[in-house]
Amino acid sequence: MRKKHSFAIIGGDARFTKLSEALERDGHSISAIETAENVILPLPFEWDDQIMRTLKPSQRIFAGRVRPLDIERAKAVNLHIRDYFAREELAVLNAVATVEGALEIAMRETAVTVWHSEVLVIGFGRLGKLLAHRLHAMGARVVVSARSYADKAWIAAYGYEAADSANLNTGLSAFDLIFNTVPADILGREQLAGINLNCLCIDLASKPGGIDINTASELGIRAIWALSLPGRVAPVTSSEIIKDTIYHMLDEEN
Amino acid sequence: MRKKHSFAIIGGDARFTKLSEALERDGHSISAIETAENVILPLPFEWDDQIMRTLKPSQRIFAGRVRPLDIERAKAVNLHIRDYFAREELAVLNAVATVEGALEIAMRETAVTVWHSEVLVIGFGRLGKLLAHRLHAMGARVVVSARSYADKAWIAAYGYEAADSANLNTGLSAFDLIFNTVPADILGREQLAGINLNCLCIDLASKPGGIDINTASELGIRAIWALSLPGRVAPVTSSEIIKDTIYHMLDEEN
Amino acid sequence: MRKKHSFAIIGGDARFTKLSEALERDGHSISAIETAENVILPLPFEWDDQIMRTLKPSQRIFAGRVRPLDIERAKAVNLHIRDYFAREELAVLNAVATVEGALEIAMRETAVTVWHSEVLVIGFGRLGKLLAHRLHAMGARVVVSARSYADKAWIAAYGYEAADSANLNTGLSAFDLIFNTVPADILGREQLAGINLNCLCIDLASKPGGIDINTASELGIRAIWALSLPGRVAPVTSSEIIKDTIYHMLDEEN
Amino acid sequence: MRKKHSFAIIGGDARFTKLSEALERDGHSISAIETAENVILPLPFEWDDQIMRTLKPSQRIFAGRVRPLDIERAKAVNLHIRDYFAREELAVLNAVATVEGALEIAMRETAVTVWHSEVLVIGFGRLGKLLAHRLHAMGARVVVSARSYADKAWIAAYGYEAADSANLNTGLSAFDLIFNTVPADILGREQLAGINLNCLCIDLASKPGGIDINTASELGIRAIWALSLPGRVAPVTSSEIIKDTIYHMLDEEN
Repeated sequence: MRKKHSFAIIGGDARFTKLSEALERDGHSISAIETAENVILPLPFEWDDQIMRTLKPSQRIFAGRVRPLDIERAKAVNLHIRDYFAREELAVLNAVATVEGALEIAMRETAVTVWHSEVLVIGFGRLGKLLAHRLHAMGARVVVSARSYADKAWIAAYGYEAADSANLNTGLSAFDLIFNTVPADILGREQLAGINLNCLCIDLASKPGGIDINTASELGIRAIWALSLPGRVAPVTSSEIIKDTIYHMLDEEN
Repeated sequence: MRKKHSFAIIGGDARFTKLSEALERDGHSISAIETAENVILPLPFEWDDQIMRTLKPSQRIFAGRVRPLDIERAKAVNLHIRDYFAREELAVLNAVATVEGALEIAMRETAVTVWHSEVLVIGFGRLGKLLAHRLHAMGARVVVSARSYADKAWIAAYGYEAADSANLNTGLSAFDLIFNTVPADILGREQLAGINLNCLCIDLASKPGGIDINTASELGIRAIWALSLPGRVAPVTSSEIIKDTIYHMLDEEN
Repeated sequence: MRKKHSFAIIGGDARFTKLSEALERDGHSISAIETAENVILPLPFEWDDQIMRTLKPSQRIFAGRVRPLDIERAKAVNLHIRDYFAREELAVLNAVATVEGALEIAMRETAVTVWHSEVLVIGFGRLGKLLAHRLHAMGARVVVSARSYADKAWIAAYGYEAADSANLNTGLSAFDLIFNTVPADILGREQLAGINLNCLCIDLASKPGGIDINTASELGIRAIWALSLPGRVAPVTSSEIIKDTIYHMLDEEN
Repeated sequence: MRKKHSFAIIGGDARFTKLSEALERDGHSISAIETAENVILPLPFEWDDQIMRTLKPSQRIFAGRVRPLDIERAKAVNLHIRDYFAREELAVLNAVATVEGALEIAMRETAVTVWHSEVLVIGFGRLGKLLAHRLHAMGARVVVSARSYADKAWIAAYGYEAADSANLNTGLSAFDLIFNTVPADILGREQLAGINLNCLCIDLASKPGGIDINTASELGIRAIWALSLPGRVAPVTSSEIIKDTIYHMLDEEN
């Protein structure tokens, strides 16, 4: 049986309303910032003097996407900000939601089915692994590009076709859908020039992204840079993921 | 090598433009209705005196969703309308597109991921089979209801949980998503009363549908009746399916 | 709550011992043939005068693989033999077990992994559907042959490659594994001559089978005719399937 | 086009015969140890004075499972042994073969189908990931235990149930099949005492293994320690994996 806590939740979007409800459903209490044992700050975290001055060193402070500078600044006044967004388990489960958002975009924005589409997934990290898994299950012909022999072995082991990320210039014209997950210069002018005009490119990489969106537009290629999908497409699941991650952090502190 | 034909395409929506392009890509010619060997009429077919009078018994006439009455009426003037929409292979592949459309709606209209959702699929025909397959692959917890022991055995064999369609009154409150595929009185007031208010109901059954949409709305349950998805969500794939089906029909006549 | 019954179990193999145990675990009683409400006869059923003379019209008699002649012969003495083996749900779940047995043979008898093997499944009935599903999941490259356009559409919808059963003469040399599920002349001398010597052929079709085993042996091709796998590879599951089927039959009689 | 090389292959088992054939099929030549550019030594590598004295620093030497001591000893005489068995891509693809071998054992040694079995996979490394993937696809109910929250998130993301490796004492009685992949004290007397007598335990962990086989036997629990499966169950695939890995190492040296 989990110990019951008091939480203050500052700010937010739909996710935070849901988070508050979910914590109460689990038997915790929601209280004012001054009296809460645990304070959950907005995602992404922005330093707000008024709020930060209210906080006490005895409180557990949680926030998401906190800049290292702000962690230090808080330390200087004896506040310890725990970044739940830096936790691997949250990143994995957020990737589940991101992938669903990406599939939704692909289905909405194309005139073909995912089934029997030729799809390229660039990168085999969290997003690449889950994208390939879902696309393959929907009957797409899935090629995943990676750099290391080990990743290519994994790609083959799961039944997808492996390609070399360092060598994407040829063969791009075959694809109906391209998902990029790598935040590096992946699809520049040279690569884009080889892409089919019916192809939809979806960039899921965080800043600076991996697709040259301006050049794509100039060449008449549809490219969408889709960021922060979990909170937008699945706020309730997203709040559950944050809640569970905070529980893990509490467990680890005890 | 397929023999080359001439086709006239009458009417339509995006699908028919794509169909015309696809036939030309395959080396066939597009011609006027008077000179074409094969004439493809709109989907759904509506009798149009002006067009029907132009047609000749020597032409092969294709149409979709033709009423038996119109087939007879055409026969009376020596015209043989072949209904490609009545072909099983088209129905199966249209189900692939319908299921993607249904998943897109589910992802767009809910605040949760499909992953880890509790999903009920009512019916294990074409749509039920493919819906369950895709949902299961996306990590949903899938219950499929059917009537026969044989269907329930198939549901279990594929790894889903089987429920009894005749006995859906209890347990409905557990579901986050309900897809109906059966065109019969399935979710009436009694059943709807037991559904969770966060649940989304998507009715994919052709007329008369299987969900009492008015009662759902009265009870505050979100219910969407989604018809004719293939042409709307995947017109290009949809036109390919029609084209392949017409090819099959041509092959069978030779 | 299921009504409790008394059962007599006549004969046999490991499955029947397990069946007896499972019925008792469910709260039923096992009794002598003279006093049991329900009598379960051996699988396959063979007429045995001594046993048949003991049976009374008031008893429910269950047997498997009963010849029509024996059904009639029993009727003449007012006995009604119910064939649980003729039930579709039993056939489906037995196919699950057969497919696992077939995979076990394939893994044991080849020097390659199923993963990345080129596999042909002939037929898309119960066995073909489940074989294709399991092989695909294990990373094999799966081609399924069928005759009808509808079956080929299903094969494609599930993400496998479709081939034409009527036209299997060419291309057979590409396969590492061939599973036949069709009880008809499928792989005769002409077809076998085109098969790779490293290929393993597994015939799952009931009598008369579909692979000419003698010619295969003469040509140096390994061919295994694997019959009655469920009872051999999974007697416990097999007895559960029989038990559930008998329950369904009891339910339907009430 | 890959450059052609000469190879000498020393020793062994079926895999090495197949490796030799596969290299020749790719256009390389097989030559005597004295003249070969590349020498492939047995797996596992055992120092053999006679062979080692024949080798020259100008030759590329490949071996598998080489002890660090032997690497050093070779260095002392200017020989550079490259361990292909230490490569991640080989480990991943060997895991594919190991998992098939493990499934074959499970199917052969149990009286139930994998389908609908309750299966515990201990560990979510290479073997755990692929075991869970294949078992889930065959319709087993798959629980995977891991230690980190991140691994448990991955387990959930792929649709399996997560358990805590540190807390396996309770609930073990529910399983029909347990696969251990962790080379540490996992199933000792305390845990084994809670296991169902019908359960089969398969230990895939390298030495020292993770199941106390003696205690299992004493308690009447069937436990199999299955080592070196790839070479035994799929020597041809195994030789292909070694070949490809050696190619990667050659590519990287150029």
